[in-house]
Amino acid sequence: MIRDHDRIYTDRGHERRRIMEYNSKKVKKRVRFTDGAGNALSGCNIGIKQTEHAFLFGCGGFDFIKYVMEGEDEYKQLTDSWLDVFNYATLPFYWGNYETEEGKPEKEKLLKTAQYLKDKGVKVKGHPLCWHTACADWLMKYDNAVIMEKQLERIDREVTGFKGVIDIWDVINEVVIMPIFDKYDNAITRICKEKGRVGLVKEVFDKAHECNPEATLLINDFNTSINYEILIDGCLNAGVPISAIGIQSHQHQGYWGREKLEEVLDRYSHFGLPIHFTENTLISGEIMPGHIVDLNDWQVDEWPSTPEGEARQAKEVEEMYRILFAHPLVEAITTWDFRDGAWLNAPSGFVRKDNSRKPSYEMLKKLIKEEWWTDTTVKTDADGYAEIDAFKGDYRIVLNDTETEAEFVDDNEQTVVLG
Amino acid sequence: MIRDHDRIYTDRGHERRRIMEYNSKKVKKRVRFTDGAGNALSGCNIGIKQTEHAFLFGCGGFDFIKYVMEGEDEYKQLTDSWLDVFNYATLPFYWGNYETEEGKPEKEKLLKTAQYLKDKGVKVKGHPLCWHTACADWLMKYDNAVIMEKQLERIDREVTGFKGVIDIWDVINEVVIMPIFDKYDNAITRICKEKGRVGLVKEVFDKAHECNPEATLLINDFNTSINYEILIDGCLNAGVPISAIGIQSHQHQGYWGREKLEEVLDRYSHFGLPIHFTENTLISGEIMPGHIVDLNDWQVDEWPSTPEGEARQAKEVEEMYRILFAHPLVEAITTWDFRDGAWLNAPSGFVRKDNSRKPSYEMLKKLIKEEWWTDTTVKTDADGYAEIDAFKGDYRIVLNDTETEAEFVDDNEQTVVLG
Repeated sequence: MIRDHDRIYTDRGHERRRIMEYNSKKVKKRVRFTDGAGNALSGCNIGIKQTEHAFLFGCGGFDFIKYVMEGEDEYKQLTDSWLDVFNYATLPFYWGNYETEEGKPEKEKLLKTAQYLKDKGVKVKGHPLCWHTACADWLMKYDNAVIMEKQLERIDREVTGFKGVIDIWDVINEVVIMPIFDKYDNAITRICKEKGRVGLVKEVFDKAHECNPEATLLINDFNTSINYEILIDGCLNAGVPISAIGIQSHQHQGYWGREKLEEVLDRYSHFGLPIHFTENTLISGEIMPGHIVDLNDWQVDEWPSTPEGEARQAKEVEEMYRILFAHPLVEAITTWDFRDGAWLNAPSGFVRKDNSRKPSYEMLKKLIKEEWWTDTTVKTDADGYAEIDAFKGDYRIVLNDTETEAEFVDDNEQTVVLG
Repeated sequence: MIRDHDRIYTDRGHERRRIMEYNSKKVKKRVRFTDGAGNALSGCNIGIKQTEHAFLFGCGGFDFIKYVMEGEDEYKQLTDSWLDVFNYATLPFYWGNYETEEGKPEKEKLLKTAQYLKDKGVKVKGHPLCWHTACADWLMKYDNAVIMEKQLERIDREVTGFKGVIDIWDVINEVVIMPIFDKYDNAITRICKEKGRVGLVKEVFDKAHECNPEATLLINDFNTSINYEILIDGCLNAGVPISAIGIQSHQHQGYWGREKLEEVLDRYSHFGLPIHFTENTLISGEIMPGHIVDLNDWQVDEWPSTPEGEARQAKEVEEMYRILFAHPLVEAITTWDFRDGAWLNAPSGFVRKDNSRKPSYEMLKKLIKEEWWTDTTVKTDADGYAEIDAFKGDYRIVLNDTETEAEFVDDNEQTVVLG
């Protein structure tokens, strides 16, 4: 039995926790506002209007390629919806597609698309530089030494060639299974078998880091077991320059739930590195049977989105994003498909096949652009100081008809000059 | 249908394989025999009599402590049987027993026993320097920094203190489970949680290596899954000075069989390091039910050795030792219990509780001291050369009434001086 004062206490505790929860994603500090001559702007009402999140709210950006290269109307509506919510896009660099014929990489369309996204304020990640799946078949005619050489040249070409436009890379994908992947022969499994997991990880990261020392370099895996923990532990002790730990969370077989999410976060927090949820899927249709081990084995003609499924998806999106956004080390969440019917033909998007927005879209937009979004006015004191309590990100700072831009990302002392 | 010539071919193939199988454990070379003045011993019949294996045929040597310290008759019979077969003993350095009270290690009895074994030509391994089980409870009153300091001091004390008598150490035991071991709180799980597996492995190995750069340093685990592979991969890439990979094989729940053995050998061969089977158990009684996860949970008052069990055990010992001895990277096999009724009260020994020898004892003795043992005579040519085809180890070289000692361990050119 809960007595009334218990309930009140509980509610208050809950509320306090909710307020505390996102502290890692906010700045709380005194900021000084001055005019161009350095005079304090005393007793002014100053508008603090967020224009972008520091947090990376991501989604697959594959559809932008078609839009940028072909400019079809259908894609305009789609990409507009995308841009209303997200600030971080994953673009495909699967070797087998990017360089179907040796020596003829499809650089132009990727560079144009990435540049388009950058101009829209979107950060872009290239995915992936080294992976055994979707790899170039022509590599297999070479011996392992040459394959390795070509892998490193490829990393140099992409990381150097896109520097300034793409500065975030999934350097290597799914290393836990890489040397024992046995569905088909491929060049990368061959070199991973020879060099060992950590040896290969080290070489590809060292090359990527050498080509762009400022880049954010990710290791990425769907395996969240102890295997991946030990792999990362080994890599870090071997000096591999990993910037962030990538965790895939394709949940075609059902939502992980709070307990598993928190358990995974807990285990991967030990390293103290930023955590990126790199490939998230929550579906709005029937759940894929649990006996399927490789998700790619589930091939269906139709996989409809249902009203009940869409309600469930929105609820799961809310809970999952709340848990992840609240975690101090999580710095990015990327949902894999923006529109239904992409990978595996699944109802995995925020919009349906006809581009109409699902409840999950509205839910996530509300979180990102309302609840976790700062749009307020502060009053400065006699010395021009005001307390800023704001989600980390970019801001327009407005005083009457003057305005400027500011970035609030940490609790360091800061002065904003207006006019 | 097998036609006769097929059968012959098959039998010959089998025979050839059997002969080839142990090549890695043999030397095949020309050796020159001279007298003390350097003159060739031409046309002489020279006895090549093996006195010891280079391969480490090991067994738990815990019983030697009682024998050496108390000298009881019961132990004389036991240790004599032991010494008839083995050349490699594991002695216990469990921190919780070795140093029950802080600052009062039981060095004397271990040093005396190790020295006794060394004098008998037996190599000794200390087991283990760092482990979460059987750890000293008094460590838990310290914070993690002090625990770590005491762990490293302990390694220094033992590795330096026993140098020359014990030069082989299980440096760290069961690291895969170490940071997630949750049966009870202990000091080592605490520091492993904090430092991570590879971080802790590196520190303890670096210390052991610093204290005795010539020592053989092992990592050891019962987990033979991909976890342990990735752990070793990470450690090697992080520069951990691992001399040999230790694999436990307690088979209370049934013999692994050829397929699993070869699969494990195959996976752990990738590192190119020597492999030691460090803790082998094959029982001669009823098999422990498969649902038991931690073998220590199987507590029984009686676990009899049976005639059928003993026949099975001897067969399994033969097959397993043949497979391991044939593998080029395997350099040691240690059976855990010499006598029945030791760990878990299991019928796991080569001798029964009354010290009588089991069929497995006779089988293993036949392999080690007959089939894999060289006792032959060679005839030198005009220049004093003879072809030596012998199992690696120590030899008495006999010509009439003169003799000398020689070590045959590699295929390098060698001269043996007689008289």
